[in-house]
Amino acid sequence: MEMKAVEGGITAPKGFKAAGVSCGIKAGTKKDLALVCSEVPAKAAAVFTTNKMVAPPILLSRKNVSDGIAQAVLINSGNANACTGERGLSDARKMSELAAEALDVPSENVLVASTGVIGVPLPMEKVERGIKEAKVALDVGGHLEAAEAIMTTDTFPKEFAVEFELGGKIVTLGGMAKGSGMIAPNMATMLGFLSTDLVICRTCLKACLVEAVNKSFNMITVDGETSTNDMVVIMANGLAGNEKLVLGEDDLPVFQKALDLVTQKLAKTIVKDGEGITKFLEITIAGAKTFGDAKAAAMAVANSNLVKTAFFGEDANWGRIIAAIGHSGAECDPWKVSIHFNGKKIVENGMVASFDEDDVLGILKGEEIEVLIELGVGRERATVWTCDLSYDYVRINAAYRT
Amino acid sequence: MEMKAVEGGITAPKGFKAAGVSCGIKAGTKKDLALVCSEVPAKAAAVFTTNKMVAPPILLSRKNVSDGIAQAVLINSGNANACTGERGLSDARKMSELAAEALDVPSENVLVASTGVIGVPLPMEKVERGIKEAKVALDVGGHLEAAEAIMTTDTFPKEFAVEFELGGKIVTLGGMAKGSGMIAPNMATMLGFLSTDLVICRTCLKACLVEAVNKSFNMITVDGETSTNDMVVIMANGLAGNEKLVLGEDDLPVFQKALDLVTQKLAKTIVKDGEGITKFLEITIAGAKTFGDAKAAAMAVANSNLVKTAFFGEDANWGRIIAAIGHSGAECDPWKVSIHFNGKKIVENGMVASFDEDDVLGILKGEEIEVLIELGVGRERATVWTCDLSYDYVRINAAYRT
Repeated sequence: MEMKAVEGGITAPKGFKAAGVSCGIKAGTKKDLALVCSEVPAKAAAVFTTNKMVAPPILLSRKNVSDGIAQAVLINSGNANACTGERGLSDARKMSELAAEALDVPSENVLVASTGVIGVPLPMEKVERGIKEAKVALDVGGHLEAAEAIMTTDTFPKEFAVEFELGGKIVTLGGMAKGSGMIAPNMATMLGFLSTDLVICRTCLKACLVEAVNKSFNMITVDGETSTNDMVVIMANGLAGNEKLVLGEDDLPVFQKALDLVTQKLAKTIVKDGEGITKFLEITIAGAKTFGDAKAAAMAVANSNLVKTAFFGEDANWGRIIAAIGHSGAECDPWKVSIHFNGKKIVENGMVASFDEDDVLGILKGEEIEVLIELGVGRERATVWTCDLSYDYVRINAAYRT
Repeated sequence: MEMKAVEGGITAPKGFKAAGVSCGIKAGTKKDLALVCSEVPAKAAAVFTTNKMVAPPILLSRKNVSDGIAQAVLINSGNANACTGERGLSDARKMSELAAEALDVPSENVLVASTGVIGVPLPMEKVERGIKEAKVALDVGGHLEAAEAIMTTDTFPKEFAVEFELGGKIVTLGGMAKGSGMIAPNMATMLGFLSTDLVICRTCLKACLVEAVNKSFNMITVDGETSTNDMVVIMANGLAGNEKLVLGEDDLPVFQKALDLVTQKLAKTIVKDGEGITKFLEITIAGAKTFGDAKAAAMAVANSNLVKTAFFGEDANWGRIIAAIGHSGAECDPWKVSIHFNGKKIVENGMVASFDEDDVLGILKGEEIEVLIELGVGRERATVWTCDLSYDYVRINAAYRT
């Protein structure tokens, strides 16, 4: 059986329910509190922000997931509960306790996440009412509401799920995520929640998650920024009834493939909803000396304001790509670089190639552009996904709080 | 005698002449070729871009300055002579030879610099005619024309000069520079030309230049970008007749102070002409564990698109400052950070301080803002200068070539 995309997002796997409600953290009636819960305790693994100014919910969730078990995740948007001092820590703890009480599970099995404005204490009375409401609303059909409730400047909810066969059993893997500024590598970027009914050991689950994140959420960037609050969590509740996956198992790559697919799909969707985006850019560096070089060069190109504004302006300003690579620290040689846009050669041996200007203009007018850069100094490659930099990015971020 | 600002820019010191002409590299009658020449061979030192994709003029000038002697600098704008292959190298060489011939000096004593579009060969016939014209125009009064001729997207010419006494003699130090995008640390940033009539040994001159650049041009950033072409050069022709300055001399700090003043003045002027700037920002990190940490954190704040757009929007979004520091890799503690805007405390112990919103709004409406961030984990500090990120930055860079 092939990998098959299915409906249902985070609640597609057996035994998961979700809800998204409006508790009043955000203005108006916008949803701002999501609850995801498994019927039974699940194996859990998580990856957290590398930002040193970690927010209280990260501190709490890091502790609660350390035993590899979780049963629920509570997420609020509109307020990051960051830079909120002792009160922030106690609010994060309170969130896990209130959800635990409502769901009748141990509070150490509840993870919490927050996203939004920094430095403002959470309105805990509203959160408390919201948790009760979310408990009542919990439903297999609640995945889309949950995906909506974790949005900040996102313009659409992001969810995806797949089904695959493993040892004669149907296994399902679902997920939801939010962006959409402060998207940059090293997991300091966004929120992602994954659920599966797979039976798997904790060690495998963590290893597979780390690998998937390194190939997906760590390979996207909107503006090179990272946040104080971000995390990716996976819960595996074992209800698919497959034989338990452990390290070295032949079936492990099947699960890894599914996890890669779902995380990459969510990661790219985050970029496609990048603040002010008009173009989705896939930047591949090939022929690098090391993978580290390839990734550094690809990220330097992807994060270059000059490159991003050139794509916004539909201008084949490849000189800025060359300058960004030279600035990245990656081993390179100005005489060996070649650059392709959607397979069309623009630069060869570090100099402009002969190409039809209209062909290239046609490519630049498109909404998705693949940029392939061959460094010609080795065999390693890396691909990152990013977007252009437009007037709207400035508009959105100049007036975020007001 | 105090340090005194004087008129005359690059030709303020004795024995220097300059010219700026239009030779047709740029459209219309815009000046695009500058020539600076000393009456006599001068001690010379230079610092070059750290970008690995170095352009041919850098390769040539690096070689020509390696003996510590130069007599002239030829600079064109409108074309970077970068990514131009063998032809680019031969064009750079040709530029030095043509200028040498016109000035009747050895070609290895002529440095060349280019700035502008990447990847297009230089129109050498125009350059050749321009060099002849510049030779004729060379004059003590030509400093402003020269400063104009090195501009790209700069909106005004940048020059500065000072006079000071050293061992009973009047010494003059002048300079000119160009920005105004791709301004970032590590000298991969811009062009700067300095002249002095000081008598000084080569080793001292190089050491003083490196120190000055590290405290000036390497401490500014507009967009975190670096270029393939940038350099800072100083020529010291010895016509002031002071006793020769050598290492360990008591008078060396006097010259260093003058050099710091001129380079910092030029560096800040570059930021003040940053593409699309509406606010000039001075970012100081204090209380860092190491100077490296202080500079990394200051640069992370200065290069953060989210911080820059917040200042553009006159929004006291200090959470983004905290997030940028946390992302910088510098040792820090979310419970110890404090932030001041123009001396007004905004954040204390990582949390919002009580302040008058109107006071802060008044500060944010100003054109120059001093941001002081105390990390509270050590004693080191660093200051960088940057600007905000506006719609105009996007507009300028989305349409640079077209």
